[in-house]
Amino acid sequence: VRIRAFNYATRGPSDVSALRRALDEGEYRAEDVLCVIGKTEGNGGRNDFTRELAMTALEHLLGPRLGLAPERVQDRVIFSFSGGTEGVVSPHMVVFVREATPARSRRTGEKRLALGIGYTRALRPEEIGRMPQVRETARAVREVAESLQLESLADVHLVQMKGAIPSFTYAEAEAARKAGRELRCDMVYSRGASALGVALALGEVPEEKLSDDAICRDWSLYSGVASCSAKPGLERTEILVLANSPEWEGDLQVAHGVLEDMLDTRTVRAVAERLGVRVSIPPDPAEVRKLVGVFAKSEADPRGTLRGQRHTMLSDDDISDTRYSRCVLSSVLASVLGETRVYVSTRAEHHGPLGGGTLALIARVGES
Amino acid sequence: VRIRAFNYATRGPSDVSALRRALDEGEYRAEDVLCVIGKTEGNGGRNDFTRELAMTALEHLLGPRLGLAPERVQDRVIFSFSGGTEGVVSPHMVVFVREATPARSRRTGEKRLALGIGYTRALRPEEIGRMPQVRETARAVREVAESLQLESLADVHLVQMKGAIPSFTYAEAEAARKAGRELRCDMVYSRGASALGVALALGEVPEEKLSDDAICRDWSLYSGVASCSAKPGLERTEILVLANSPEWEGDLQVAHGVLEDMLDTRTVRAVAERLGVRVSIPPDPAEVRKLVGVFAKSEADPRGTLRGQRHTMLSDDDISDTRYSRCVLSSVLASVLGETRVYVSTRAEHHGPLGGGTLALIARVGES
Amino acid sequence: VRIRAFNYATRGPSDVSALRRALDEGEYRAEDVLCVIGKTEGNGGRNDFTRELAMTALEHLLGPRLGLAPERVQDRVIFSFSGGTEGVVSPHMVVFVREATPARSRRTGEKRLALGIGYTRALRPEEIGRMPQVRETARAVREVAESLQLESLADVHLVQMKGAIPSFTYAEAEAARKAGRELRCDMVYSRGASALGVALALGEVPEEKLSDDAICRDWSLYSGVASCSAKPGLERTEILVLANSPEWEGDLQVAHGVLEDMLDTRTVRAVAERLGVRVSIPPDPAEVRKLVGVFAKSEADPRGTLRGQRHTMLSDDDISDTRYSRCVLSSVLASVLGETRVYVSTRAEHHGPLGGGTLALIARVGES
Amino acid sequence: VRIRAFNYATRGPSDVSALRRALDEGEYRAEDVLCVIGKTEGNGGRNDFTRELAMTALEHLLGPRLGLAPERVQDRVIFSFSGGTEGVVSPHMVVFVREATPARSRRTGEKRLALGIGYTRALRPEEIGRMPQVRETARAVREVAESLQLESLADVHLVQMKGAIPSFTYAEAEAARKAGRELRCDMVYSRGASALGVALALGEVPEEKLSDDAICRDWSLYSGVASCSAKPGLERTEILVLANSPEWEGDLQVAHGVLEDMLDTRTVRAVAERLGVRVSIPPDPAEVRKLVGVFAKSEADPRGTLRGQRHTMLSDDDISDTRYSRCVLSSVLASVLGETRVYVSTRAEHHGPLGGGTLALIARVGES
Repeated sequence: VRIRAFNYATRGPSDVSALRRALDEGEYRAEDVLCVIGKTEGNGGRNDFTRELAMTALEHLLGPRLGLAPERVQDRVIFSFSGGTEGVVSPHMVVFVREATPARSRRTGEKRLALGIGYTRALRPEEIGRMPQVRETARAVREVAESLQLESLADVHLVQMKGAIPSFTYAEAEAARKAGRELRCDMVYSRGASALGVALALGEVPEEKLSDDAICRDWSLYSGVASCSAKPGLERTEILVLANSPEWEGDLQVAHGVLEDMLDTRTVRAVAERLGVRVSIPPDPAEVRKLVGVFAKSEADPRGTLRGQRHTMLSDDDISDTRYSRCVLSSVLASVLGETRVYVSTRAEHHGPLGGGTLALIARVGES
Repeated sequence: VRIRAFNYATRGPSDVSALRRALDEGEYRAEDVLCVIGKTEGNGGRNDFTRELAMTALEHLLGPRLGLAPERVQDRVIFSFSGGTEGVVSPHMVVFVREATPARSRRTGEKRLALGIGYTRALRPEEIGRMPQVRETARAVREVAESLQLESLADVHLVQMKGAIPSFTYAEAEAARKAGRELRCDMVYSRGASALGVALALGEVPEEKLSDDAICRDWSLYSGVASCSAKPGLERTEILVLANSPEWEGDLQVAHGVLEDMLDTRTVRAVAERLGVRVSIPPDPAEVRKLVGVFAKSEADPRGTLRGQRHTMLSDDDISDTRYSRCVLSSVLASVLGETRVYVSTRAEHHGPLGGGTLALIARVGES
Repeated sequence: VRIRAFNYATRGPSDVSALRRALDEGEYRAEDVLCVIGKTEGNGGRNDFTRELAMTALEHLLGPRLGLAPERVQDRVIFSFSGGTEGVVSPHMVVFVREATPARSRRTGEKRLALGIGYTRALRPEEIGRMPQVRETARAVREVAESLQLESLADVHLVQMKGAIPSFTYAEAEAARKAGRELRCDMVYSRGASALGVALALGEVPEEKLSDDAICRDWSLYSGVASCSAKPGLERTEILVLANSPEWEGDLQVAHGVLEDMLDTRTVRAVAERLGVRVSIPPDPAEVRKLVGVFAKSEADPRGTLRGQRHTMLSDDDISDTRYSRCVLSSVLASVLGETRVYVSTRAEHHGPLGGGTLALIARVGES
Repeated sequence: VRIRAFNYATRGPSDVSALRRALDEGEYRAEDVLCVIGKTEGNGGRNDFTRELAMTALEHLLGPRLGLAPERVQDRVIFSFSGGTEGVVSPHMVVFVREATPARSRRTGEKRLALGIGYTRALRPEEIGRMPQVRETARAVREVAESLQLESLADVHLVQMKGAIPSFTYAEAEAARKAGRELRCDMVYSRGASALGVALALGEVPEEKLSDDAICRDWSLYSGVASCSAKPGLERTEILVLANSPEWEGDLQVAHGVLEDMLDTRTVRAVAERLGVRVSIPPDPAEVRKLVGVFAKSEADPRGTLRGQRHTMLSDDDISDTRYSRCVLSSVLASVLGETRVYVSTRAEHHGPLGGGTLALIARVGES
């Protein structure tokens, strides 16, 4: 079995023409589409409807081809769209396809990109942002990872998640508060607990260091491979695990690193080189072409400084720090890697150290 | 005579404490302050009052020390403040001081930073954006350059200008329109004509290629050293010329390059290396420390693409392309040079090719 | 024949549940839906995708019921969505249904709301913003008006239009410029010429006063009933004419007025009272309930003052004047009329005097 | 003794020309200026430097006339500037002057505007947002009120405050958290506790209903006359009390009301009429001219609805709800009162009911 990945530029949030053409021309089959990860040109906030527009277009494209009603498509294919293409970011989508390959006679031992999807159970509002969410996320991540026939959990390089934020009533919130356990059922806590769930699953943080009090408080604890957003109304967390496995084939590999801050070009370079992508100033187009996906989490350092210098991203009440931090990190990535189709998602609680974030690259490394 | 330059971080637009301390401690004299170039944390637009606040603070600081009323200070010292510290940019000001040095016994022939200031004559509204502005700007730039004892005009590396936009009445505008010569008395045309004035002065563009029709139309014509903003109500253009001269002393040099686009790291590297600043991934702190000023013009490519990929900076009605382009270029510069105290000003008509801009660096190269 | 109108609150741009329910319950038939006018919660600008999302949802709802492919629905039903629900505006849609009624035995002579739709022919880029667009719009408006069996053109109270902005190439634009007829194929000119087309059709402005030069220049010329937006890529202007006719039945009437400025409550009151809706401070809920549609055009006065006082809507580079002017006028309308489901569209070239706009109300006046 | 008030339009945040002229022409004396309340055209947020610019200009204007260094002026005159002139609001300042009048021979018993200023003691971070701040604010308000020779505390109609937010270290915050008393030293809590302090002082809320837990929680408790902003770094709360007193003279009176929501025109009308200002649609210019000050607090209803209809002010991530709510309420006030020089400040915790706010008008009622 192998993964193929296709990075399509889009002309607008509802533009699925490249995917339609690929399906029409038999490049791959709708049944084999595992997930679509993309950036759309909204503000990435609460009133960003570009994600819904993109997913609606995909549902109407894939539904008939899968024999499903449009509203059932997402039970089968994971869509992970992030709004906000600030600065140089070019709107795009990466389609991941899983295909059967002929049985290999000879094992080379080389590892290739493996991708699995999974879900937590439905979570209750009072579990979000607390240890039950951390443990259930860890369980689900391990379950997916185990299905990928990995040599080691160290071969997991990216866990892309859409975190649950179940709905609740005002009365439930008040009851929780009076019981001394104020609900944490919001985006900040859901992202934070999801990331710590990954850290627990992969052994990045030992369980004894984790507690309700540590979540969104002890920033020394983090995962280096998590990438989590959170969506109000979602009952269970959706999980994509990207790893390298000796049992998978194809020509792709994934690698990751932890960005110390938004200017950490040292790590960008190191991750690229781990995949055989040589980095230089300026970037070499032949090297750039090896990349098929760039995924990162960014954060305007909450301490208000970057490398000892004051920044103003957090005190600007006209433009959100989320938009700034995506713009900055995508510019840095484009500058170093020579690629503007980058997926940068923002706010990075327990995704790398304070002010930092996680980075994963996927590149062509040659057929195994 | 020599130039010294001091790059001070600020805690807010009105923070002049570092300059006050330097004056109080005798680091240099108020009489020797030639100009102050800075970035303040406003939006860089029409309702950006941070520049006025910064200049008011400087006027009240320097006025008493110069024996001038605050409102007279700018007749003697040029203040060039640009609003907009998007992303990683750290608010700061660079103070340039011109000091007499003891007569040198032995000439080394090495060139050092020379800085001169000047003004065009008062311009009339109908001259703005047309050849009279171009020619008068060229004349004034040449006049300043000549005063600097340069070996060649090729030694001019940065002409920082605040372009005139004289006031006019509605009746004057209507009269001009009816006479078939609609006024061009706005920011776009004033910046464009100023840049072409520099190009004419320095021989970058031959006079026969210039015409009213070419201004803000023929983008193949440009200056590689201009950096112009424009200010409504200003009657004459204020001009700073930065060059290298064998007759000037000190330890500073300036160099420049033309950015082909906002990701042109090749040029950033080349300019730095011309000053002996080695560039690497990641930047070497010892090299970074040599830099005392980074000045650039940026522009979101008006064709809507960057290196063949669509960008969305021009179709976002929530955030101006001026803010995006400053954020992008400053991130790229910070990523390559390791410095967040960078001065990026935006909209770059005839400042480099379409979608590009000008770049000048000042660095310590050792005493001459 | 009669018009019925239904004003539905929406929970988001894609919420068509109220319309679905009405169709499912047989309140009216999909075949009878003539047009849907609505406000969605985007920014109303170039990157406002909420309109596309709303129209996609309507296409997928109505397509199967009309036996049409989704992308064909708009050939039959006009959708007119305006982004921007600033301030108190509640996102909503007004569905207009045209139904046959039993032949009336006795004519009362009372006029009731009549609604017709039409289109201009496809317009060429060089026609936009010039007299050919004005004349063709006038022709099409008259054609629709004539089909409504009106007593007089004075009975037309609202002409809602989506103005054509045909696509063109850079070469075509350059050729036009060189021929001395620079293209005016943009939103400003398309809206302006559309409004003057209505003014010509209805005799509000005599043809001899109209010329290419007067368009978007002579602001003394305007229509008091036009309401036009413009859409890049649209080849022909879509037209809705709302009038009162003695040949139509039902319980609705429309009335209009010209707002002198955004605070012109005198006109709001006068228009309401013409429909028998009594206006008071505070509004009387029984009167408010008679209203089924409030439609207005707004504009931040380009002279920078309102009733002699300076306003800052045009010099704010963080928030567009379009968002301010919608917020202001909708607040004023809500304050006077007691209704927050108001449709305010912005930029009002030749829609009322400079700084003013058009206003139309639809109310229940009793069965004819 | 009497209060005179002057409402000056400004051409920019630093425009103090009208005040300068009045002083130069002897209209009143600098020594008699008690306070200046104004609106400047910033965003009203953390990066709004227009307030600092306005206050700097006033300090430099009044300092020499008062024989004070500029930085000492605010020890003597209270400046209360609010950023944000959204929509129709015209930037302006109201100067309040207190002057001695000849001893009156005959007491009429009529009450006239009385104005006093005061301060709380310096507050500690742990006191903010808790009962100590409430009680100290109440004490200081009562002290000022008592100095005004009022008949009754019911004659207090506006308590304008700038609330303390003393600085604290990260270590102090952590220590407080570990002690189970997390700091509430922020704008929300400082405003809320200030308002409840007024409510306590004036008997609007009985002390037994107040507790740490009720602050920013029990929204049924509120003051109808408070108007509080809060300023990081401020150690003590600055207080202006506006009341009507039989012992004061002049021609001004103040009245207040509690807005139930942002469309509560009934209350606007009632307050105006209490001052003899007749309200009509449209407003009568002769009545409008009686007004010299309009002061209100606004709030986008946190429940997301207004009179049962959904609003989108809280889910728009491009424009802050603070800007929307100021724009809405100022439009409503301008629509009803016919005046665009209105002072609307936003976020109204415990200032009127949830979604509502306080309103105070000052008008000329004839010499006492």
